[in-house]
Amino acid sequence: MKKIFDSLAFAFFMSIFVACTSNTKTVNKNTENTDPLPSWNDGATKTAILDYVNDVTNAESDNYIEISERIATFDNDGNLWSEQPAYFQLFFAIDRIKELAPEHPEWKNEQPYKAVLDDDMDSLAKQGEHGILKLVMASHAGNTTDEFEAIVKDWLATAKHPRFNRPYTDLVYQPMLELIKYLQENNFKTFIVSGGGIEFMRPWVEEVYGIPKDQVIGSSIKTEYDYNNGNPVIKRLPEIDFIDDKEGKAEGINRFIGRKPIFASGNSDGDLQMMRWAASNKLKSFMLYVHHTDAEREWAYDRDSHIGRLDKGLDEANEKGWTVIDMKKDWKVIYPFELAE
Amino acid sequence: MKKIFDSLAFAFFMSIFVACTSNTKTVNKNTENTDPLPSWNDGATKTAILDYVNDVTNAESDNYIEISERIATFDNDGNLWSEQPAYFQLFFAIDRIKELAPEHPEWKNEQPYKAVLDDDMDSLAKQGEHGILKLVMASHAGNTTDEFEAIVKDWLATAKHPRFNRPYTDLVYQPMLELIKYLQENNFKTFIVSGGGIEFMRPWVEEVYGIPKDQVIGSSIKTEYDYNNGNPVIKRLPEIDFIDDKEGKAEGINRFIGRKPIFASGNSDGDLQMMRWAASNKLKSFMLYVHHTDAEREWAYDRDSHIGRLDKGLDEANEKGWTVIDMKKDWKVIYPFELAE
Repeated sequence: MKKIFDSLAFAFFMSIFVACTSNTKTVNKNTENTDPLPSWNDGATKTAILDYVNDVTNAESDNYIEISERIATFDNDGNLWSEQPAYFQLFFAIDRIKELAPEHPEWKNEQPYKAVLDDDMDSLAKQGEHGILKLVMASHAGNTTDEFEAIVKDWLATAKHPRFNRPYTDLVYQPMLELIKYLQENNFKTFIVSGGGIEFMRPWVEEVYGIPKDQVIGSSIKTEYDYNNGNPVIKRLPEIDFIDDKEGKAEGINRFIGRKPIFASGNSDGDLQMMRWAASNKLKSFMLYVHHTDAEREWAYDRDSHIGRLDKGLDEANEKGWTVIDMKKDWKVIYPFELAE
Repeated sequence: MKKIFDSLAFAFFMSIFVACTSNTKTVNKNTENTDPLPSWNDGATKTAILDYVNDVTNAESDNYIEISERIATFDNDGNLWSEQPAYFQLFFAIDRIKELAPEHPEWKNEQPYKAVLDDDMDSLAKQGEHGILKLVMASHAGNTTDEFEAIVKDWLATAKHPRFNRPYTDLVYQPMLELIKYLQENNFKTFIVSGGGIEFMRPWVEEVYGIPKDQVIGSSIKTEYDYNNGNPVIKRLPEIDFIDDKEGKAEGINRFIGRKPIFASGNSDGDLQMMRWAASNKLKSFMLYVHHTDAEREWAYDRDSHIGRLDKGLDEANEKGWTVIDMKKDWKVIYPFELAE
């Protein structure tokens, strides 16, 4: 226990140190250089982004777009933060199952829980969609929204990524943070549109991405309001409500936002319908794919990956001239902590 | 046809005239008087609103609330615009059924369509919830989201309210427009949370209330993305997705906004769960009921009304000290057009 406190205290002081260092850097940068995307290498990708934003925000341009129409949608997993060696939300589910296991002795002999408790990833992979669904329900439902928010925050404060041994929220992409901020400064309203759980993301996206909770769209389970004798709560039920993936992304955008994006950013075939939805905007739109090409600093995967497969999307991007980020070539740094190193 | 054009042209010139007049008035007001709620009579209600906003936005106050937490939710029917002699969306559904009737000869002998086509409101009232649902599906589904938006806009541009003989969007409450603006100027994020259809409201709320489309929560039918050979559309299906009323309002707020409001405004028992949800906020919150007390300028109804019944909500407001607007006493004008008269 003491060790955890020590490491937390250390992390706390480090975070102040890093914050101070990076603040100073930012101040210097702002006076020396007004580049809004300093972590992006110069080249076609960066130029395409800057040219697009300059064009549609220029009142003299034929392509000028009113502020109310400047909707930008970002996928999350593999697009704003890493998604390897497994979706971070799956690590959360696994840790949560282990935490709840003492209350469920039957899980020792029941799949998919047994595989989780035995750290048997091969068996877990064989449980299929139904198995994953059971894991999600057991780890995400059966509490109130307030309780679940606290559980997610507690997990993020202590859990470490297996490769980097850092909090998962450290593994966000610095160039994308700059892009979000740049679009916001140009009066774009920035949304997350993720296959991940909406209530798994909301507890931390404001602080980490600067995106308000109400601008997050994600998958959800059903909920139920309970007056609870004058202390109303919303209960999280073990039943899928909405899967915000593939076709669901366009449907979710319509449901939550009510208008087509002019800027869409994703990294997998699961984002293709969102891309096409933005591409069909009568206003000039911009479609941006992240291509994971950096095995050294991050991961390299695309057409054959089980996680974040980018196959049809890559073909369509090439065919239609959408912009594709070559992570290795286009990004000076991947994660914010590299700036402090 | 010519008559319609003439009256449209007349309406167009009138609207310019009204806009110019009211602009002048506003300018005068701003220089003479900085009252943010000029259409509200001085008294306890107005004072309660101003005191609350001054308190929670004052950085020196113990009740200061950060900008990210300043969420305000407004019911629509009977709260931002009138809802008598029937919900305006029902008039839309009736007009739409009549428009579609030539394609459905069977409706002449089939309820609830027959009642609509015969203008037989007594029979229509007897069709119950199931009948209303059939009307809604027949009038609201079976098209794409783009088509439906155009249908709603066309209807609003031509339909007239039976009592006032004016476009329905003229029947919004001037004092509430001022309240929305006042909250926005104090960095509140303002949302509509209505039992009405989300896609029925979105085409006009930005222009009429200054509330962005993505800050509208309402009832919805299911939708389906269709790639449509490269011209993607979202189809509106004849199946209920979500009823944003009573418990649904708290659930909808959680789903779309992800945090509790600090300010909630409604006019009926259907808003009570939203009020309780806001009242349970740990931050200082403000609950505001509109009480329809003005039979002359608007309508007077509460405990026995079939539309917008306010019974339990009124008791709870009195018991808990929530603020209740006495429309007759508290509002100098009801509708914006009164300012130009």
